[in-house]
Amino acid sequence: MSILELMSALGRSARASSKELARASTAQKNAALAALLQQLKADQSSIMAANQHDVDQAQAAQLHDAMIDRLTLTPARFASMLQGIQQVMDLPDPIGSVTDMTYRPSGIQVGKMRVPLGVVGMIYESRPNVTIEAASLCIKSGNACILRGGSESMHTNQALASPMGHALQHAGLPIECVHIVPTTDRDAVGQMVRMPEYIDVIIPRGGKGLIERISKDARVPVIKHLDGICHVYIHHQANLNMAFDIALNAKTHRYGVCNAMETLLVDAAIATRALPPILTSMHEKGVELRGCLRTHSLFPELTGLATDEDWSTEYLAPILSIKIVDGMDEAIQHIATYGSHHTDAIVTDDLPSAQRFLREVDSSSVMVNASTRFADGFEYGLGAEIGISTDKFHARGPVGLDGLTSLKWIVIGQGHVRGS
Amino acid sequence: MSILELMSALGRSARASSKELARASTAQKNAALAALLQQLKADQSSIMAANQHDVDQAQAAQLHDAMIDRLTLTPARFASMLQGIQQVMDLPDPIGSVTDMTYRPSGIQVGKMRVPLGVVGMIYESRPNVTIEAASLCIKSGNACILRGGSESMHTNQALASPMGHALQHAGLPIECVHIVPTTDRDAVGQMVRMPEYIDVIIPRGGKGLIERISKDARVPVIKHLDGICHVYIHHQANLNMAFDIALNAKTHRYGVCNAMETLLVDAAIATRALPPILTSMHEKGVELRGCLRTHSLFPELTGLATDEDWSTEYLAPILSIKIVDGMDEAIQHIATYGSHHTDAIVTDDLPSAQRFLREVDSSSVMVNASTRFADGFEYGLGAEIGISTDKFHARGPVGLDGLTSLKWIVIGQGHVRGS
Repeated sequence: MSILELMSALGRSARASSKELARASTAQKNAALAALLQQLKADQSSIMAANQHDVDQAQAAQLHDAMIDRLTLTPARFASMLQGIQQVMDLPDPIGSVTDMTYRPSGIQVGKMRVPLGVVGMIYESRPNVTIEAASLCIKSGNACILRGGSESMHTNQALASPMGHALQHAGLPIECVHIVPTTDRDAVGQMVRMPEYIDVIIPRGGKGLIERISKDARVPVIKHLDGICHVYIHHQANLNMAFDIALNAKTHRYGVCNAMETLLVDAAIATRALPPILTSMHEKGVELRGCLRTHSLFPELTGLATDEDWSTEYLAPILSIKIVDGMDEAIQHIATYGSHHTDAIVTDDLPSAQRFLREVDSSSVMVNASTRFADGFEYGLGAEIGISTDKFHARGPVGLDGLTSLKWIVIGQGHVRGS
Repeated sequence: MSILELMSALGRSARASSKELARASTAQKNAALAALLQQLKADQSSIMAANQHDVDQAQAAQLHDAMIDRLTLTPARFASMLQGIQQVMDLPDPIGSVTDMTYRPSGIQVGKMRVPLGVVGMIYESRPNVTIEAASLCIKSGNACILRGGSESMHTNQALASPMGHALQHAGLPIECVHIVPTTDRDAVGQMVRMPEYIDVIIPRGGKGLIERISKDARVPVIKHLDGICHVYIHHQANLNMAFDIALNAKTHRYGVCNAMETLLVDAAIATRALPPILTSMHEKGVELRGCLRTHSLFPELTGLATDEDWSTEYLAPILSIKIVDGMDEAIQHIATYGSHHTDAIVTDDLPSAQRFLREVDSSSVMVNASTRFADGFEYGLGAEIGISTDKFHARGPVGLDGLTSLKWIVIGQGHVRGS
């Protein structure tokens, strides 16, 4: 069977079973999740063995340490995977909920009902826990899914297929609701993103390179998550203690995450008061500081000189670029020019400035007096996060269960017909 | 200048000006609309002359009557175009509205703010009033737009460009917020749908052929509106007077519209009571009736025989296909197999049946005891309709101003930082 034939067959059966899953009751979907949790517990040793197989191969192939780390299922990670299923079970079922039901002048009642998108395609690298996370979220939101994990985690993912099938069957749902692609062939990805007849949305999880490649070829809508070049802007009317706490947290709480600050902007009027404690603390924590000309000339002992490339780089590392600006116009302009529309924060006590920043900064999360690190599905109360979108179409920012759904219109009359 | 260069230049300037329009106040956007209304009034005679030029050319080129009719701006249509602007002015401004602002356990407040998508590309045929309608809706929703009308209405559209530019300038907005593509070259369309860097969404208005062509080539999200194969299903517990009214209205109120009924489904248990008055009245109104085998054998004097092709045809004409079904399973199955996920209605007095139909029929509008003709942005209270989506991604069914917007997350703290 060619890759094209294989992927078409998976697509067709996912599409067919998605209709049954869309009709499933909340109890039935939760029963599938409960059975999955139980079955994973029962199969833990064989899954861990399969994972060891993947890890051994990855070590033999000399994959880099970070990738091997992401690939490895420790007992703690296994437990947290199970906990994730329980969390999804505990979430309210979004499907079938009716909102905005109102009477129109014609006498009909019009409202909206939340429905699944249909079939979700996930394309991801190494972390095998994404397989369970994505499947759980798709089952709960009534979507069939086709999961294409990294080739390095193939044995683990295949070991997860059997408890998955068992759980669906146990709940009386078609096992074709969740497909774990059984091939490491790279063409499978190329096929997935070009099957709009079978797949309604593609969610890639991985590096920028993967996502750009996928978006370029895709004929199916993609929930894209590209760069996170996040800014904190310390306005001249900021509370400087607050500014210190937020800047330190945004940069040093975790370095390798998309919602970490990469550039600090500071109003010139307060730079000599605001910057010294921040730069000193960052320096002590081992953060490399790269300043604009003004910053560097004020603090030559702490900062190197930032090049133009620094402003548009997502470091994901203990490096921070710093720019002194002449007020909000320049700050907003800098964010618009070099930012990635991910998450940007202002620190200010001035209400009109806060309002203007919230309105004019075109990012998926815009914050006042809070650390950019809060940009996260769990922190926002979504209960779970299937991905983060740096696009504006359909979903923006952290995407929860609702991002896997759509709204259809419902109309209820008592024999109403339309007049002339 | 090549078409590629021309379209890139339009795209770049639309993208740049969209940022200014996104920040514009409600008053400023309404001022632009008011000025547009006034200027169109002032320029009416020159616009009508340009339109006459298009109509003369269309007649000389022997375009078919329906197209010439759509192309022609009568004084009544001109007046209704002006009225449309007034309606958009009267709509609430969706931009900047904040919803769902709640406190999270961490202490931050999280909510959503409505923002423009950015740049909208409209591709449409003949009707020049779409130019003004689309521009008004885009201005109100803070989106720049690139409007590509049919080549047959080129003179009219170019005559509309000058009052448009005047109105934007009058309101202090960049005239590049609205571009009317100044070429009839077909490659312009091909370029528009492949510029995701400059255009955020493409909305085609026109026949299925145009929309399929555009979707096939598009690298920009498209709000697609394909077939409207709408069903009315008369359940065996229907009020038969209601069923009669709804069936007649859904079919005969207007024939050439996407929300007209194309297939009538009737439960076998009531077919001999429900069908005679309906078929007789349809017949009297000149509707050609094509029945399934059972229908045809019951009413051979009224109905021809429907072929399999009938079930999947959007007639847009006084033709109706009729099928007798053995209950709701078969009705829902028929709709799933042959429908176009546009609008489908059940007539029933049985609550569980109504609930099941609403939940299980996967169409953008699902109705109980109401005519399919109600599927319309104005009837739903959207105030205006920029298009109708038969997709599920982003927007489904009638699309109003909100469909041209996205939601960004806003976070407000008092110095909150994220803990471990």
